[in-house]
Amino acid sequence: MKESLSIADYLTRRLQTEGIEYVFGVPGDYALPLFSAFRKGGIETINTCDEQGAGFAADAYARIRGIGAACVTYCVGGLKIANAVAEAYAEKSAVVVISGAPGISERKKDPLLHHKVRSFESQRKIFEEITVGATVLDDPETAASEVDRMIELARRYHRPVYIEVPRDLMSLPCRPPAPRQMAEESDPQALAEALEEARQMLLASRFPLILADVEIHRFGLQKELVQLTETTGIPVAATLLGKSVIAETHPHYVGVYEGATGRAEVHDYVEASDCLLLLGVFLTDITVGGSSASLDMSRCIYATSEKLSIRHHSFEGVRLEDFVRGLLKLGIEKKVLPGIAASRTEAIRKVPARPQDRITVQSLFAEINRILSPEILVVADVGEALFGASDLIIREPTEFLSPAYYASLGFAIPASVGAALANPRLRPLVLVGDGAFQMTGMELSTAARFGLSPIVILLNNRGYSTERHMLDGPFNDLLDWNYCRLPEFLGAGRACQVRTNQELALTLQAALSQKDSFWLIEVRLSPHDRSPALERLAHRLAPQRRTNP
Amino acid sequence: MKESLSIADYLTRRLQTEGIEYVFGVPGDYALPLFSAFRKGGIETINTCDEQGAGFAADAYARIRGIGAACVTYCVGGLKIANAVAEAYAEKSAVVVISGAPGISERKKDPLLHHKVRSFESQRKIFEEITVGATVLDDPETAASEVDRMIELARRYHRPVYIEVPRDLMSLPCRPPAPRQMAEESDPQALAEALEEARQMLLASRFPLILADVEIHRFGLQKELVQLTETTGIPVAATLLGKSVIAETHPHYVGVYEGATGRAEVHDYVEASDCLLLLGVFLTDITVGGSSASLDMSRCIYATSEKLSIRHHSFEGVRLEDFVRGLLKLGIEKKVLPGIAASRTEAIRKVPARPQDRITVQSLFAEINRILSPEILVVADVGEALFGASDLIIREPTEFLSPAYYASLGFAIPASVGAALANPRLRPLVLVGDGAFQMTGMELSTAARFGLSPIVILLNNRGYSTERHMLDGPFNDLLDWNYCRLPEFLGAGRACQVRTNQELALTLQAALSQKDSFWLIEVRLSPHDRSPALERLAHRLAPQRRTNP
Repeated sequence: MKESLSIADYLTRRLQTEGIEYVFGVPGDYALPLFSAFRKGGIETINTCDEQGAGFAADAYARIRGIGAACVTYCVGGLKIANAVAEAYAEKSAVVVISGAPGISERKKDPLLHHKVRSFESQRKIFEEITVGATVLDDPETAASEVDRMIELARRYHRPVYIEVPRDLMSLPCRPPAPRQMAEESDPQALAEALEEARQMLLASRFPLILADVEIHRFGLQKELVQLTETTGIPVAATLLGKSVIAETHPHYVGVYEGATGRAEVHDYVEASDCLLLLGVFLTDITVGGSSASLDMSRCIYATSEKLSIRHHSFEGVRLEDFVRGLLKLGIEKKVLPGIAASRTEAIRKVPARPQDRITVQSLFAEINRILSPEILVVADVGEALFGASDLIIREPTEFLSPAYYASLGFAIPASVGAALANPRLRPLVLVGDGAFQMTGMELSTAARFGLSPIVILLNNRGYSTERHMLDGPFNDLLDWNYCRLPEFLGAGRACQVRTNQELALTLQAALSQKDSFWLIEVRLSPHDRSPALERLAHRLAPQRRTNP
Repeated sequence: MKESLSIADYLTRRLQTEGIEYVFGVPGDYALPLFSAFRKGGIETINTCDEQGAGFAADAYARIRGIGAACVTYCVGGLKIANAVAEAYAEKSAVVVISGAPGISERKKDPLLHHKVRSFESQRKIFEEITVGATVLDDPETAASEVDRMIELARRYHRPVYIEVPRDLMSLPCRPPAPRQMAEESDPQALAEALEEARQMLLASRFPLILADVEIHRFGLQKELVQLTETTGIPVAATLLGKSVIAETHPHYVGVYEGATGRAEVHDYVEASDCLLLLGVFLTDITVGGSSASLDMSRCIYATSEKLSIRHHSFEGVRLEDFVRGLLKLGIEKKVLPGIAASRTEAIRKVPARPQDRITVQSLFAEINRILSPEILVVADVGEALFGASDLIIREPTEFLSPAYYASLGFAIPASVGAALANPRLRPLVLVGDGAFQMTGMELSTAARFGLSPIVILLNNRGYSTERHMLDGPFNDLLDWNYCRLPEFLGAGRACQVRTNQELALTLQAALSQKDSFWLIEVRLSPHDRSPALERLAHRLAPQRRTNP
């Protein structure tokens, strides 16, 4: 890159070298030249109905491709994606947020330019709270280096960064970036000591177990995980946020562990282990069951990108990737461990469902499980859609997306747009409740406009059913839309309503065979029907009696 | 209030004493007990499709009633309304944001509880950037006083505040609030000196003029403004953000002044004044035309809630209300000033439009102007909807709402929900483009659910037409929905598409006579047709050539 590129063109080129083919966003006057620069540089711009949709789409793209980008205008665009970017922060997804902004020359004397909130720093300060790096490209001398620094931060921490581009500098030539230090390496002695201690614990263990979570996806360590379990025989459980970190048909796979709110057989199996190898795990209240999880740290080896602890002491300067790869070289002999088959999650297949019966949550997920294939990517929204989906058996690694920890309603449909563009070989199967659909479901318009064909299964139970069971009131009700009229409204797509198991099976078959448009399948469920997982979770999350005024 | 109320009940009661009858929001587990407390206390909760809609609705409610409230859950709800709250900050609207949050006892050891971003302080820090006060009710001893302090800040500055309520404290009894200092009074000497100087300038002036803006609405000084112009004869112009600050049929009213981007006759009239009395004016690029406005400060008396300047010096400690009321007592003799009638905005009535002709932007606004009445509140979204609406003649004060400065697309439809509940005697007439409709138009579901009946005029020009004229590309395109199929999709409301002037007139007549549901009237406009106001604005906001990469 010796020629002198403009700031906008340098940014475009850097996104491309990161493999970003699509930028999601809604244009606005401060950002228009960026949209134009991306297109000229060969990056397609995907404009969503609302910026919120762009944020979720970029997050999903980043989850699949390692990094993604959203472009918005100043404040009225940027602040609309604050929540989606916060989700990417909480769940480790490398979203590069690019915001057009008033020119530096326009900011003199602090005038009231449209879209400004309190000061020209307001938006950057807000993004500092929800990113691992925030910069304003206010100097052509440093702009290119700053772009590089942000992308490196996003890559390293798998979290969002914020790049603000004042519009009067976008077309100015920028100085080629300063050479950057190589990424830090692990401290070799700390790494060796930690690995040796891990080896001894694993050797001494009668019943070791791996609990794998979201960072295995984010750091691209899925293959290493498979190798580790296959060479050592140590079984693998996943968290809900980490679900599909390994093919769930793998013979060493135990199931999803969710503390006391998860399935009892998985819970018992995991907690019986005398040596837990926690790889890339977030100990959250949802995914590990919060205080209900009784993980005894004195039997844990706990490695994440942020810390490495063994029992009650920790090691500085050991990277997750190096530790996981190091485990592969320990030469741990393969053991045959008991009880794996018994714990395998077969419950979902055992539901008796007659064709003419009304669909229940259980029969719905059994049917979805039946049609899953390696060509399908499951994207689950929050609520019953997610909890019901936890028992699906995902065939390939990283073919299940869901905001299982941050849990923002409305993720799944816009995420399916990002996911379909990130990996066109997979067709998204979206699971979404009516509450989440009413938030962002209209982004099916974006799917239609760009020729994408997600299959959306709408679990219609007429309200916020997770909450209904905690504390009910009319605030949990929703208007019951005629969801299957959506194609007439949008002028695109296909939709229908199903009530019986047979209707569901036939409709899913039709949807799978017709790949030229989205399908919206509204499943009428009883508001009182819920999955065992939701039953347990709702009970635990319910406000305690004393907090009910 | 001598009995011991819980924190949630105290908050409820304080909202009620402020006259708040409705709280807008979407529930979530951390916030559910608040929703329940509001309802028990007699405040109705209005749950919107998405939190964004709740933010805009609460803003509109506050614009009409002086104060409004939104209730959300932690982060996944709160961060979704950051943009709407920023708009309320920028345009001075007293929105009380109430967020449920993890309990204080749950926060020990900083666990990963669902919905958390970086730290338990993240959300509060973000709201500190977009409010005039942010507090966490983490102590029953101070909670009531903190609630009072926040409401006082919101009332005083007419800007949003943030109250975070940890769920484990909501039901604890709170100590009655400490007595609060009375609101500050103006410095009597500074006030007297400023008024005397103003009097002399006005007396010496051959052609004084009042330019009135949004703070006259917010501080409830509309009557004082009428009295001032009627007793002194000084004519009044308004800004776009302040539009309807005085009835636009008032004989002393000149029109909307927007600097060089506005109508030439108003521009010339205002700029010919040798003594401009700027009351509650925001000198923004949109409303006053930014750098294009050539207001000579040496002939200005400039009073806002934040500062009082006369010519090039300023006065400390003078409140806007006191200054405006003081002006009334100056005994300025009534003059008959020239040229008011000539400048009156009659242009809109002069458009020849034959019934069978296709609707144009001009004929559309002429027809809307014809049907306006004191029973109609105009709510304009951003873009052509706003710029076309600037020439409408609003009959009563504060019957025009629009985010004319912050300019966030998607305001109008959710705002009409808040407005209709704030003043049930007025029927909202919503003007919205297709871009904004695709963002938040589904909040018509909320209107339907709560029995509201806005008339929505959708200006369909198939894309972001303001931007199209600045810098075009496929990112300015939108899918062309079959908007008039919305009632079938929602199962509520009425809609139709109109193409000719006659169809428009007949449909508006029908909509006005049927008040039992919302009406959506899609007006097919040519993408190339635009109002003179937009023409001028698009030209000025277009990225300068050198900034186009």
